[in-house]
Amino acid sequence: MQEKLREHIEKIIKLTDEEFSFISQHFITKKFKKHQFLIQEGDDVKYAYFIISGLLKLVYTDESLKQHIASFAMEDWWESDYYAFFTQTKATMSLECLEDTEVLCFTLDDYKDLCDNSPKMLRFLLEKANFGFLASQRRILYWMTSNPKERYEQLLKQYPSLFQRVPKSLIASYLGVSRETLSRLSS
Amino acid sequence: MQEKLREHIEKIIKLTDEEFSFISQHFITKKFKKHQFLIQEGDDVKYAYFIISGLLKLVYTDESLKQHIASFAMEDWWESDYYAFFTQTKATMSLECLEDTEVLCFTLDDYKDLCDNSPKMLRFLLEKANFGFLASQRRILYWMTSNPKERYEQLLKQYPSLFQRVPKSLIASYLGVSRETLSRLSS
Repeated sequence: MQEKLREHIEKIIKLTDEEFSFISQHFITKKFKKHQFLIQEGDDVKYAYFIISGLLKLVYTDESLKQHIASFAMEDWWESDYYAFFTQTKATMSLECLEDTEVLCFTLDDYKDLCDNSPKMLRFLLEKANFGFLASQRRILYWMTSNPKERYEQLLKQYPSLFQRVPKSLIASYLGVSRETLSRLSS
Repeated sequence: MQEKLREHIEKIIKLTDEEFSFISQHFITKKFKKHQFLIQEGDDVKYAYFIISGLLKLVYTDESLKQHIASFAMEDWWESDYYAFFTQTKATMSLECLEDTEVLCFTLDDYKDLCDNSPKMLRFLLEKANFGFLASQRRILYWMTSNPKERYEQLLKQYPSLFQRVPKSLIASYLGVSRETLSRLSS
């Protein structure tokens, strides 16, 4: 499981065994069953998660109790309610398993310790943060300039496996359309 | 002008004079007049900009030549077509002055040199990247869960000065509504 983390980091920056050993001490392993929550709205957010296997949904529930999928997270992704994690405030989103899931995770203290004591991990985290920022910025633009049909086709092209692994109702929520509209798009 | 950059960085991390002197050597100063472009779609993106004074719009033009405002950028903000900057590809957005503007900017080589040789700047850049990512993520959620009237009121509350400094047509473009809808919202 640690090996997957190492491979993931080394896509960006090479590590010696000693460097990786120091980094991996900051992570703990957790396993969850389908339907379990890693984060529930209103709770403290103790961890940021690196997903070894499985699939999760990050969900925001609005005042009318409508659920909005902020993102799906699968193998090789990082996920958390990052705002709550970094500011140590209560979760405004929930993170729930759509499949049995294995993760490695760290606390904010461990994150800070890594930043202070592992220059390579700091470089890695900067790359990931930049990438996350760019992906979000592109998603905003895409949301502004696309229609639901285009969003559907883009998602299908980018993550074909999602359509096997996730109920249609959740795909619809992620795309910001009704279940009926999605049926029309996918027919 | 350098003093403004130092204040800005020191909101996150304190610097010695030597540390700041090293950092500031990586920046150059540029001045632009209203309507000048810092970045034009299709060009190389040589710099990321820290805005000392002035106001800019980051614009994406879609296939039907409709302009979408990705963001406004003002004093104390960083802006660029970051995707093109980091990947050294051609700009897909343009960055244009809405007022006379003064900036400090760095190249990607200078950015990398700062990351390699200034641990404090690396920490600062990670904080900013995390913040940018969080802000974008919240904007996506807000976009999914709000209507144009709520977006208008939120923008007015968060950046009241924008409404004095920016033509209404651009505010409408940022909110994703027509000029007529905006008039109705603001009346």
